[in-house]
Amino acid sequence: MNKNEALDAVFNLRSVVIVGVAPGDEGFNTGRLFLNHIIEYGFKGKIHLVNPKGGEVLGLKIYPHLSDIPEAVDYVISCIPAPFVAQLIKDSAAKGAKAVCLFTSGFAEFGTETGRQLEMGVQRLAQSTGVRVIGPNCLGIHSPKAGFSFAPDLPHETGPVSFICQSGGNTMYLVRAAGARGIRFNKVISYGNACDIDETDLLEYLHQDAETKVVAAYIEGVKDGRRFYRVLQELAAVKPVVVLKGGTTGAGARVAASHTASLAGSHDLWMRALDQAGAIRVNDLDEMADMLVTLQYMPLLGGKRLAMAGVGGGAGVLATDDWDRAGFVLPQLPDDIRQAFRDALGNDAGTILSNPVDIPHLGFGHEVFRHALTKLGQFQGIDLLVFHLPIRGIMLSLAVAPILIDRETETIIRLHRESAMPMAVVAHYMATGEGWHFAAKYVKDFYEAGLTVYHSIPSAAKAIDRFIRYHRNLMASQP
Amino acid sequence: MNKNEALDAVFNLRSVVIVGVAPGDEGFNTGRLFLNHIIEYGFKGKIHLVNPKGGEVLGLKIYPHLSDIPEAVDYVISCIPAPFVAQLIKDSAAKGAKAVCLFTSGFAEFGTETGRQLEMGVQRLAQSTGVRVIGPNCLGIHSPKAGFSFAPDLPHETGPVSFICQSGGNTMYLVRAAGARGIRFNKVISYGNACDIDETDLLEYLHQDAETKVVAAYIEGVKDGRRFYRVLQELAAVKPVVVLKGGTTGAGARVAASHTASLAGSHDLWMRALDQAGAIRVNDLDEMADMLVTLQYMPLLGGKRLAMAGVGGGAGVLATDDWDRAGFVLPQLPDDIRQAFRDALGNDAGTILSNPVDIPHLGFGHEVFRHALTKLGQFQGIDLLVFHLPIRGIMLSLAVAPILIDRETETIIRLHRESAMPMAVVAHYMATGEGWHFAAKYVKDFYEAGLTVYHSIPSAAKAIDRFIRYHRNLMASQP
Repeated sequence: MNKNEALDAVFNLRSVVIVGVAPGDEGFNTGRLFLNHIIEYGFKGKIHLVNPKGGEVLGLKIYPHLSDIPEAVDYVISCIPAPFVAQLIKDSAAKGAKAVCLFTSGFAEFGTETGRQLEMGVQRLAQSTGVRVIGPNCLGIHSPKAGFSFAPDLPHETGPVSFICQSGGNTMYLVRAAGARGIRFNKVISYGNACDIDETDLLEYLHQDAETKVVAAYIEGVKDGRRFYRVLQELAAVKPVVVLKGGTTGAGARVAASHTASLAGSHDLWMRALDQAGAIRVNDLDEMADMLVTLQYMPLLGGKRLAMAGVGGGAGVLATDDWDRAGFVLPQLPDDIRQAFRDALGNDAGTILSNPVDIPHLGFGHEVFRHALTKLGQFQGIDLLVFHLPIRGIMLSLAVAPILIDRETETIIRLHRESAMPMAVVAHYMATGEGWHFAAKYVKDFYEAGLTVYHSIPSAAKAIDRFIRYHRNLMASQP
Repeated sequence: MNKNEALDAVFNLRSVVIVGVAPGDEGFNTGRLFLNHIIEYGFKGKIHLVNPKGGEVLGLKIYPHLSDIPEAVDYVISCIPAPFVAQLIKDSAAKGAKAVCLFTSGFAEFGTETGRQLEMGVQRLAQSTGVRVIGPNCLGIHSPKAGFSFAPDLPHETGPVSFICQSGGNTMYLVRAAGARGIRFNKVISYGNACDIDETDLLEYLHQDAETKVVAAYIEGVKDGRRFYRVLQELAAVKPVVVLKGGTTGAGARVAASHTASLAGSHDLWMRALDQAGAIRVNDLDEMADMLVTLQYMPLLGGKRLAMAGVGGGAGVLATDDWDRAGFVLPQLPDDIRQAFRDALGNDAGTILSNPVDIPHLGFGHEVFRHALTKLGQFQGIDLLVFHLPIRGIMLSLAVAPILIDRETETIIRLHRESAMPMAVVAHYMATGEGWHFAAKYVKDFYEAGLTVYHSIPSAAKAIDRFIRYHRNLMASQP
């Protein structure tokens, strides 16, 4: 089976086998972790278990051998030690499985000759049997469409973003962090050492996948640099591709070698190649989430002129420094808009009537204030209107903060609905765990209303800047 | 009364007057907000209210005039409009108050001639009457020792850090954010336009204040550059001073002028002056919190060689890139330590046995693993041992994540107690509001055990680097 067909089959899987699940209700291992999570996520397909010891767990029979399973299987997850994997590939081929995901580690990433030999053996078997191998040393696929995941709390809705990731932990973080800001995923794969299906195969697959509109990738190394570059360039010409390269320093590259046996390559070469291929380069996973949020929610921007409004004079001063450093301009507001704010806001403490506009605690929600904001939303001298909410930079305790933040949220969402002006929200100054928890509800309100949400001014500035440059480059490269 | 005496009196206040509180239980204004918060924070001293309309609120009588109050008053909070403030200063002097905090705005920061005249009037009255003025356009003091604050949810314990801040919102954010990581404050003051008591007076006061061991300052501008430099230099010679300068860009400086009427000054000059005076310069409020945490919890470090351990191979790769970029070195571990980890960890997926050490989900808590970590804690080739917890970079849902994180926390705290090795914890990968909320409990466990906690590798690296340079400079400058 070719790789694209196998990937199609597993992203639409109807049955899974976990090989190496701990038998009995007392035992626990990673096989059991997969089982618990697949059930808890709500997989509606068939779940089969294999362990030579037999027995049962959670009321499910454990078959001693893969061949004992009386039905067809799509996707096999291996939680058995590396030396047994070769036989499992052969058994999976005999059973007609489409792909085997090797959670199993102890291959090339161990840096031993045995490990390298084992991995080459697996690779050869994948080619000769046609059973495609994901990994080793990975979590495999998360496919909300098929109701299938390796972690119970990842979002269940599908979306336009697909994500390929050479680290399981980074996969979970990005899906959760971007998920909390309104990003829903179509196809996610943690692909580990990539001994058979590699990063380039996955990019090629996502290129032809009509459901994928945006691609994100965390990559520690590539197998074939020339092919990778060509495939990335072709993909980036038709879909935005956001890439985070891990192991860009000498020290990081050595760790990447022992993580996924990756040849990390030279930093400069990578950065140049990503830029030339038309990918959007980011420096960490939060920047990746920022970029995905921007690509999904931000309309095209005419330039880098913006107005900002929110509670807090000191926050406004620091924000202005941040915007300025990132090359954004906060133009002086015209007299009529300043007057509208002066009418609305009166003489409350700390009120700045320039740009940014500093809103007093008690200002939000008043009709006269909404009128001033509506005028601001019509100002032709800006390309973007940013609202910032310093969640714990206000006097109010969390118990009563909704008095202010409900109003502010409602006002912003209403204005966004009624105005053609591009808008973004920066929910920042969370300060404490409770502050972050509190903010999450509002973030959800904003992204459900179609607003782009960030968690700091510098991160917003960086993502918006990349977004503008991406579109500029795209236009320049078109005939 | 001189400024130091007045500051001593208000940081130990036993009575407060709020002037301009809304009368009746239906009315609401900022005076009422102060009142609610002072009560909710648990102030045990006397609270008096003034409004020409009289009446009562929350069972407290509202006096029509300050002179009607039958007792002595220490601290007066003004929530009345700017044109009435001059008379209030005179009345406060007659009543024997030590200081007046002007929440009131509409002075020089408005950029009008009227505003400037009003502010100069207040300044002259402060000098002639001896009633010291805090502000205008500020929140005044937070003094846990006196059981007094302007926000109900700020920590109640006192600590060694004092904080002077030219923005009310930034004051609340920093006290909350640093508070969540184990920083307790001694004296905090939001001082606004600084027309009488200015930033330099405050630094001078904190210099001679025996309870203050560390000083933090957010400053938008200074009144007298030479005096500021001299006082800062004298202070920095005896106590660490962490400074965030707001309005360092041209655009930011213009906003600072309309926020606190500050002359922000040239960026380069400021940066050079802060460095030469021996202050620790930071670029945002989170860096300030990082620095305070480091100064309080981190022991002296011999250098920049570290080992890192935690769950997550991809997190380890990115962390290594981050440490390397910041000039830290992760040395190769000696064979006996590697062997101890190999014995402890076996062949679980993603396990990296180099530095950083990648711990599998099920590894923590086993005695053989603790043995390996103990050996790591004795390694003479490192100056620091860092544990990282990627809170939502693991498969487990929040409901069962404590299985892993409880063990990890317990192991780290035990090791910290038993070892002389400097240690730090990076709790990162929180991903969602719930993740942050969940992490907060562990952060508290760590700081209560005396551990330094950060929320990202780059921020840890930045703070530790500044910490090392601070001590190096301090030693170099000593005879």
